[in-house]
Amino acid sequence: MDTFLKNVIELALKKAKKAAKIGEIPVCAVIFDPLKQKVISCAVNRTERDHDPTAHAEILAIKKACRHIRRTRLNEYDMFVTLEPCPMCATAISFARLRRLYFGAYDIKGGAVDHGCRIYYHTTNLYVPEIYGGISESRCADVLTDFFKTLRGD
Amino acid sequence: MDTFLKNVIELALKKAKKAAKIGEIPVCAVIFDPLKQKVISCAVNRTERDHDPTAHAEILAIKKACRHIRRTRLNEYDMFVTLEPCPMCATAISFARLRRLYFGAYDIKGGAVDHGCRIYYHTTNLYVPEIYGGISESRCADVLTDFFKTLRGD
Repeated sequence: MDTFLKNVIELALKKAKKAAKIGEIPVCAVIFDPLKQKVISCAVNRTERDHDPTAHAEILAIKKACRHIRRTRLNEYDMFVTLEPCPMCATAISFARLRRLYFGAYDIKGGAVDHGCRIYYHTTNLYVPEIYGGISESRCADVLTDFFKTLRGD
Repeated sequence: MDTFLKNVIELALKKAKKAAKIGEIPVCAVIFDPLKQKVISCAVNRTERDHDPTAHAEILAIKKACRHIRRTRLNEYDMFVTLEPCPMCATAISFARLRRLYFGAYDIKGGAVDHGCRIYYHTTNLYVPEIYGGISESRCADVLTDFFKTLRGD
């Protein structure tokens, strides 16, 4: 794994842990330019703070990146997200034409890349990014496990 | 069909036609309180204007409604949207716990309620609204057909 991607993962994990502290499900998405090795946008879940069920990390990172470059398509950029995207976010990633999708923990219950409706396997889905799942999987999963343990008071 | 729902449909069709005039794919979503017969939020596609691939009518209407009532769940409200929702929007509707989903035109290519990945048929999808498809179908479809005809210069 290249050093820049490693840095992106560290950034995502750090931000996810910060989100957990304020009661958000700790998921972080980072959109970056792999050639210029530059972060374009970074976002964590804000569903609780914003009273917004659509405010998932991936959606917010896509919105920020598109606003930044003033285009609806992010063809030359990649996303790293700490959790397997849900159907809403997997579809948004396809609409945004992100080049690569790296994700950390697999989500058996809510994921839609390797689980559930497997968004990208349907012929009606027009664009599929290159997908790399299970990247720093255990560290990404631990952030979520710790959050839910604390929530339950374990 | 009750008079209030008829009014909601007229509002959605009017707004969709206005969106077409400024180059947006003409889809409009209205969230309403069926008991108080009150419109809570209304939105059209803004993907082009906002350079935002996630700015579909349904997503924007959900965001507005949740901001308005300061809750992430819209259990007591219904949505009417002029086109069958895509997987992103169908999932957002499930997350928002909307009571009923009425939609107008069927979308064979991009829809995810009765087509494509059929979001609500998967066991991993936790909530399914009551669904009424094909409501004022031909009028809703005509708005879209006219838009694409104009776009192609027919």
